[in-house]
Amino acid sequence: MSRQSSKRPEKPKIVRSVLFSPCLYRVLRLQNWSRKWFLHHLRMLFRGIELFVLTYGTVVAQLCKDYENDEDINKELNKMGQNIGSRLVEDFLARSSITQCRNFRETADVIAKVAFKMYLGVTARVTFWTLAGDDCSIFLEKNPLMDYAEVPNKHSSLLYSNMICGILRGALKMVRLQVDVQLLQDTGKDNKITEIRMRLLRRRKVALAVAKQNE
Amino acid sequence: MSRQSSKRPEKPKIVRSVLFSPCLYRVLRLQNWSRKWFLHHLRMLFRGIELFVLTYGTVVAQLCKDYENDEDINKELNKMGQNIGSRLVEDFLARSSITQCRNFRETADVIAKVAFKMYLGVTARVTFWTLAGDDCSIFLEKNPLMDYAEVPNKHSSLLYSNMICGILRGALKMVRLQVDVQLLQDTGKDNKITEIRMRLLRRRKVALAVAKQNE
Repeated sequence: MSRQSSKRPEKPKIVRSVLFSPCLYRVLRLQNWSRKWFLHHLRMLFRGIELFVLTYGTVVAQLCKDYENDEDINKELNKMGQNIGSRLVEDFLARSSITQCRNFRETADVIAKVAFKMYLGVTARVTFWTLAGDDCSIFLEKNPLMDYAEVPNKHSSLLYSNMICGILRGALKMVRLQVDVQLLQDTGKDNKITEIRMRLLRRRKVALAVAKQNE
Repeated sequence: MSRQSSKRPEKPKIVRSVLFSPCLYRVLRLQNWSRKWFLHHLRMLFRGIELFVLTYGTVVAQLCKDYENDEDINKELNKMGQNIGSRLVEDFLARSSITQCRNFRETADVIAKVAFKMYLGVTARVTFWTLAGDDCSIFLEKNPLMDYAEVPNKHSSLLYSNMICGILRGALKMVRLQVDVQLLQDTGKDNKITEIRMRLLRRRKVALAVAKQNE
């Protein structure tokens, strides 16, 4: 077990530990159909995503009532997301047992493979890295937020899933990573894919050191 | 297996099928610690409740900005909940495999034991039934909606979790049950328990028959 996991140091700890757990291993040895059946039912019992997705819809609908301008709605969604993200990160770290990522690539992978799976029930693809490794795109082939959503034509500039960007920004800020997150494509606007561009601006450790020097 | 399940006709189908699945049975035969570990990790991977809870907080905060009066916020939460409930019921029926409840008692049990577990990660207690079996209280010992919430003193009449009442009303309306749902106690207001009073007003089948007669 420990040998197997040491061969894959790049995998997030939680994925590794679940994949090689002795109990899950017994389940995986079951016949294919019963394994699928078992995982389907457990997923069904533990997933509360639909309630979130529908509540998210009411948030956007409420904002559409409150603000006339789509840009204002996008900003508000982003702001709300930052508040959520700054609190959600504690829950994520506690439940995922992830301590520290070695670099921004690993952080993006953890977001796409563990965090998205945990909170939205889907995994995302991280690609289009810049050479410096500080700028990437996160692609969601299926965006659960859009499951029940129909964006009216008059809201052509609305970034329906913009709260995700705020959540990522707020959460990463709490682990000392200042990032710029933009929603480039949204499934709501005739695109079949959701693309989130995430750029690392700076690590807060440096900023803190500078602040100390200035004191 | 089939004999076991036929002995418990009162249990909701999904709980029965998961409890007596051959695969889960193998897991349950594992040692206590590893079983706990296994279920903890699966729950962790599949639960997205915290994101809902935090988003719910932003909904309430937004309404507190929009409305001056607590009663208006309660009404709005209820209205939003009804919209959510009328859509959530489809997802619930599809995922839980529950077809029809024989009476209102069974409906309340399914809500408390299956629906609350599925969407909020907790089970509730149904009690204080009237003799006619059309009025009961649902008690939540732990209300996850309050996990991150701090209700300011000035919102003394705010029913923080009032959306649950709307959700229940909206969902039950879709299965032809007209109910009155009230939040009697809310953990937000120094109470340690959340009490939801649910009263069956009428079954829509009758209403539809009357409407047909009038045509």
